Amino acid sequence: MARKLNRGVAIVGAGMSKFGAFPDKNSRELLVEAFIEMMGSIDKGIDPKDIEAFYFGDAAGEAFEGQGHTAPIMGDWLGLLPIPCVRVENACASGSVAIRQAMLSIASGMHDIVLAGGAEKMSNLSTTRVTDTLADFTDVYSERSAGFTFPTAYASMATAYMAEYGARPEHFMMVGIKNHRNGALNPKAQFNSSILDIMNSKISKAKGKGGAIPTWKDEMDFLHDEGANPIVAWPMRLFDCSPISDGAACVLVVAEELVRRFTDSPLYIIGSGLASCGPLHDRDRLTSISAARVASQQAYEMAGVKPQDIQVAEVHDCFTIAELVAMEDIGFYEPGTAYKAVEEGATALDGPKPINPSGGLKSKGHPISASGAGQVVEIWHQLREEAGLRQVPIKNLRLGLTHNIGAHGSTCSINIFERR
Amino acid sequence: MARKLNRGVAIVGAGMSKFGAFPDKNSRELLVEAFIEMMGSIDKGIDPKDIEAFYFGDAAGEAFEGQGHTAPIMGDWLGLLPIPCVRVENACASGSVAIRQAMLSIASGMHDIVLAGGAEKMSNLSTTRVTDTLADFTDVYSERSAGFTFPTAYASMATAYMAEYGARPEHFMMVGIKNHRNGALNPKAQFNSSILDIMNSKISKAKGKGGAIPTWKDEMDFLHDEGANPIVAWPMRLFDCSPISDGAACVLVVAEELVRRFTDSPLYIIGSGLASCGPLHDRDRLTSISAARVASQQAYEMAGVKPQDIQVAEVHDCFTIAELVAMEDIGFYEPGTAYKAVEEGATALDGPKPINPSGGLKSKGHPISASGAGQVVEIWHQLREEAGLRQVPIKNLRLGLTHNIGAHGSTCSINIFERR
Repeated sequence: MARKLNRGVAIVGAGMSKFGAFPDKNSRELLVEAFIEMMGSIDKGIDPKDIEAFYFGDAAGEAFEGQGHTAPIMGDWLGLLPIPCVRVENACASGSVAIRQAMLSIASGMHDIVLAGGAEKMSNLSTTRVTDTLADFTDVYSERSAGFTFPTAYASMATAYMAEYGARPEHFMMVGIKNHRNGALNPKAQFNSSILDIMNSKISKAKGKGGAIPTWKDEMDFLHDEGANPIVAWPMRLFDCSPISDGAACVLVVAEELVRRFTDSPLYIIGSGLASCGPLHDRDRLTSISAARVASQQAYEMAGVKPQDIQVAEVHDCFTIAELVAMEDIGFYEPGTAYKAVEEGATALDGPKPINPSGGLKSKGHPISASGAGQVVEIWHQLREEAGLRQVPIKNLRLGLTHNIGAHGSTCSINIFERR
Repeated sequence: MARKLNRGVAIVGAGMSKFGAFPDKNSRELLVEAFIEMMGSIDKGIDPKDIEAFYFGDAAGEAFEGQGHTAPIMGDWLGLLPIPCVRVENACASGSVAIRQAMLSIASGMHDIVLAGGAEKMSNLSTTRVTDTLADFTDVYSERSAGFTFPTAYASMATAYMAEYGARPEHFMMVGIKNHRNGALNPKAQFNSSILDIMNSKISKAKGKGGAIPTWKDEMDFLHDEGANPIVAWPMRLFDCSPISDGAACVLVVAEELVRRFTDSPLYIIGSGLASCGPLHDRDRLTSISAARVASQQAYEMAGVKPQDIQVAEVHDCFTIAELVAMEDIGFYEPGTAYKAVEEGATALDGPKPINPSGGLKSKGHPISASGAGQVVEIWHQLREEAGLRQVPIKNLRLGLTHNIGAHGSTCSINIFERR
């Protein structure tokens, strides 16, 4: 039975810092940047004193910056105390789970105006240390102790997907090429550059091509080059992995009766789903994440819409294989067909079902707890048709979806937004 | 203006593991123990499949057990997947903040039956490592970098309290003596023994008293003995500090219209407050925690009751000074008078205002994230008059309160319960 909240809830402001590697900025400063942009995005303005609570997604502040209990500390830096500040930790889904808690706290009647978001500062640790830190989110008894990190966990899904459906490594590469093309149009993206740009700056010179325009074949050749794109965990290569990022993103969530005080172009949260699943050995198959199937079903039922109604989506492409699995789990494509859709360009910016117009985690960057909130910020821009060069060219844009995964799918958080 | 939830919420079951140091048990096993007891406490029974969501308080699973993203992992161990599992981290207030989120999720209309609690496994690390791990909850820039850990932070509050109000170290000792006397009556307590018991086993032998019954003066002499009760951070001595503990506690929270399906003796959550405050240097004074004043005011207004109406309370005595500050912050006593009330025995088990009948964090134990949930478990037993030897002897028991602090007061979570 579909759930109905006791009160409608909408987003009336959204902001994010640039995502990237910023040696001189900590997560507090990045969150302040996102907050200032969010405050400026509220069409009719707001007094910060009206914000009543703060849900802060933070996956690993202790490991990255030696700071736990981060919610009240961040709330202090934003000048919001003594309001309730609650930290939510659901690994890489922390940001969107925080937004969900904000929604619930408003629907409960406890609050009317709530800030939610996430921030992470990762680039100060080495790749090895980051990979090790994130491996805390696997099951230490059945996965970590068996040698699993996230690249290897997703590699196991990728090999299963290839074996089961006949996909080839090139299909994963196509996801990366598409997301980099989108990221090249996103000034906030960590890799604000397509594979073509990267080739131009690195490879075409090495090949002595000078200013020649690379072809699709060149792009694929580049991704097959072991030097340029080494294998991380076969079949996942460097360009199949999202980067290590610093960044922050946040949104302002308000009760429906207050919406028009802030904007005439709000995003209602019309559907929300959240589900969990166990470690890899306990799953019925590796080519799908059951938590994503359950959570998206919940969200569709609550919203009263179907997958084919969604016009634009941001999905959790921490690895390129994850985007293919996501496309099938949320019902956009039948199992085993997502890779063909990517090959046909169906999910490109100008395709019939644009996915990750922001560049996705792959190109925009993946500052763990900020990622899920950043997806919502992108849907905010897309549905309000304020996304600039990367605006999806769909008429009567109204419905968007975010798909945010914690760990290798132990958590999946889905939200569906409608612009009204 | 007092807040009213869109739907009433009550607790219909509660359970906890024994608190202590258990080398052979991890936090998963401890939570399973608490869960089994909780399920058994539901008077009319429940099918675990009816549980719809799980809020799990966990302050430092990564540091203590190398495990992050603990909510879905714990949910898996309890056999509850694929339900939404959300981890809440508000330092030592994580457990009660998780219960608050369960309440909000039900009041929102999203869920009807929600599990909430906390667990922590700490005793595998040395005292130094535990103290260092917990210091992550201070502000790394203004406090930790200045050398503050929690014993020193609370010592600074204790010296301020002595200077401002004329209290003496003996008043802190009296809090410890009271809480150990209560803990001696609590079979789940880590120190299931009074100071008298400890003296009998250690000191009276050394003094050659044999079986002689120690007097109040003996008890005080013992606590003044530098060998038996060394100074940790003056004026806080060993017996002023809560121990390092392993343990778990949880409760089942349900929507008001379902309450009678489970029990005829529920505890309604009639008031809830949550507030934050900044680091020590930013506070107006050290003898009070502003977050506790704000949160208790919210909770009293929501409940429509006054401090004098509360009949029994569990407060956050991580250090003995914290209990005195709590008694004043929640309005039980005027500023600067709590220590006199303790001296007069007002807060003893048979006093007019019993505080920490469980033994408190000091004697029952302080497994960080379980502590706040454990307080609620104690109020459950007290208001249902099932607390055995430590039952407070008050007629028409109806109203109880829990006061749970995160860090040195950066978070304070207050809940008020009514048995109906």
